[in-house]
Amino acid sequence: MSKLSTIQTFLQEKGAEVAIISSPTTINYLTGYYGDPHERQQFLFVFSDKDPILFLPQLDQVRASQILSFPVIGYLDSENPWEKIKAILPVKGTGPIYAEFDNLNLTKFNGLKTVFSGDFKDLTPTINHMKLIKSEDEIKKMLVAGDFADKAVQVGFDAISLEATELDIIAKIEYEMKKQGVDKMSFETMVLTGDNAANPHGIPGMNRIENNALLLFDLGVETLGYTSDMTRTVAVGRPDAFKKDIYAICLEAQLTAQDFVKPGVTAAEVDQAARHVIEKAGYGNYFNHRLGHGLGMEVHEFPSIAAGNDLVIEEGMCFSIEPGIYIPGKVGVRIEDCGYVTKEGFQPFTKTSKELLYY
Amino acid sequence: MSKLSTIQTFLQEKGAEVAIISSPTTINYLTGYYGDPHERQQFLFVFSDKDPILFLPQLDQVRASQILSFPVIGYLDSENPWEKIKAILPVKGTGPIYAEFDNLNLTKFNGLKTVFSGDFKDLTPTINHMKLIKSEDEIKKMLVAGDFADKAVQVGFDAISLEATELDIIAKIEYEMKKQGVDKMSFETMVLTGDNAANPHGIPGMNRIENNALLLFDLGVETLGYTSDMTRTVAVGRPDAFKKDIYAICLEAQLTAQDFVKPGVTAAEVDQAARHVIEKAGYGNYFNHRLGHGLGMEVHEFPSIAAGNDLVIEEGMCFSIEPGIYIPGKVGVRIEDCGYVTKEGFQPFTKTSKELLYY
Repeated sequence: MSKLSTIQTFLQEKGAEVAIISSPTTINYLTGYYGDPHERQQFLFVFSDKDPILFLPQLDQVRASQILSFPVIGYLDSENPWEKIKAILPVKGTGPIYAEFDNLNLTKFNGLKTVFSGDFKDLTPTINHMKLIKSEDEIKKMLVAGDFADKAVQVGFDAISLEATELDIIAKIEYEMKKQGVDKMSFETMVLTGDNAANPHGIPGMNRIENNALLLFDLGVETLGYTSDMTRTVAVGRPDAFKKDIYAICLEAQLTAQDFVKPGVTAAEVDQAARHVIEKAGYGNYFNHRLGHGLGMEVHEFPSIAAGNDLVIEEGMCFSIEPGIYIPGKVGVRIEDCGYVTKEGFQPFTKTSKELLYY
Repeated sequence: MSKLSTIQTFLQEKGAEVAIISSPTTINYLTGYYGDPHERQQFLFVFSDKDPILFLPQLDQVRASQILSFPVIGYLDSENPWEKIKAILPVKGTGPIYAEFDNLNLTKFNGLKTVFSGDFKDLTPTINHMKLIKSEDEIKKMLVAGDFADKAVQVGFDAISLEATELDIIAKIEYEMKKQGVDKMSFETMVLTGDNAANPHGIPGMNRIENNALLLFDLGVETLGYTSDMTRTVAVGRPDAFKKDIYAICLEAQLTAQDFVKPGVTAAEVDQAARHVIEKAGYGNYFNHRLGHGLGMEVHEFPSIAAGNDLVIEEGMCFSIEPGIYIPGKVGVRIEDCGYVTKEGFQPFTKTSKELLYY
């Protein structure tokens, strides 16, 4: 069954006449067309018993029509999009309407309410559930994205020098990726030296790479429509024994959680498996974020691997395992692999060694 | 008056007790702190008669506290953010509440409604109005961002070769910018050759640069918190007379609109000034987008320079003037400068020549 017909079946079961998809990524997931309308309007209307319609800015119409086999209707900047939607809509819009609440701002919602008088219900859980279990084909694409991340981090390792700044190294990584045909990084590449790595959301800058310190790389690419995400922390020069201890604890936490994953355990239990290692070592307060997040077409998706999430892990789920220990002014370590769940356990998308590497 | 006290005065005038700011960029605009909470929650609460509170994921708390002089309250992934907001809130939340409807999705809105029982009203127009007129200090930063865009496009020109692909040239541009300390490009850099440029939202790829064709560059940087955006189209080899004609028409449209801008004219009239040139030449149907958009901390802001927008242009407004002519399968041209409005007229942020350059 195609993804669009899964939505249609869902609408029929719920007695709803239309689903309104507003997230460009979800539209891509369902149809294979990606376009960012920026502050303009773009909606995929999926009807329970009619062909879908993609409504978008006119300047994207030609490209979308080339990809899609159902009606694509554009509007000009000089037209009122809500009036145009009303004019083209093949349903009355009075029945229950499913919309992506996570991707619908109040301004768009108020615009849609001038067209649809029915009750709005949240489609987000349904879409999240569809995206949660990846197909073999999706996993193949994510392995390609992971392979590029391995290459990217290696470019970064090779660029380490006490003369280089964080931004120099990022520039080299991204240059090499673009040359190899990767459309874009899946988020702003992070290269953080010394103290800057002790901030879990540190911002790279013109800081020169510190000697006898740890250096953190967090990066990923987007390719074939899918993302990767990985973190490695390496040694530059001779970090002291304390820093190496913190690294060893973080690595043990990462590997423990990774080994723990199998179908049937819960997301909270996976988080706890890693957290327990760090707490036992006395650094629980310095691991101040969840263990991981899902990823797929977007670099942050469901599931959240966190305390309180009783979601049962299933085959085909894809997520990160990324414990970190951040002691302000002293040291920062994070180690992250993303992977997919098989019958046997967790298979990382990235293969770069996690032993502490020295540069 | 500080920007935060402008909001406070607004709340007092409206008899409202709190404004809820959810856009990371608006929070940065008002306070100088930027953080992206991704799928977590982050809100700046501005009260009519109390100190503001920034509520955010705990992992960002240290960095935000270092920058801000009012309370910063973090929550853990294991905590319910809505319950925590309820617990820390110094007001009842029963009066009118102003929120950024353009930046508040329905899921967050429904979460906030469990905390605030008052009526929600839209703060977006107020924020847009504040951002619309740039201060001298903001314009200085935008001139720096423009200067980097000029440098970036020159790197691109220097990289033109029939052996290079679109992505090769983009990689060189972005590498050079990162080396010069520019945090990031303000959007995905576009280098589009031949037919690909005839699509106003074309996507760069592994296409080799075409000979005897036009080559389009659309790029900008983000620096000092402000953005730039520019487009140049250049000749590679010897494009035929038709392509050169289309270029000349587009350039005339760009310069005509630029000369037309002065305080007192409307946005729609500026759009029409350029559109008239292209329509008169018989290519009106191939200029299928508005003339321009505002920019500042974000690369797309108010005002929209488009038919139907009767906004009166004032000193201090900043926007793009970017006519384009896209004839599928034949030729694509766009020429864009962003600039600011003075008593005398329009001052571009970017200085690269707009005469047709040959490579």
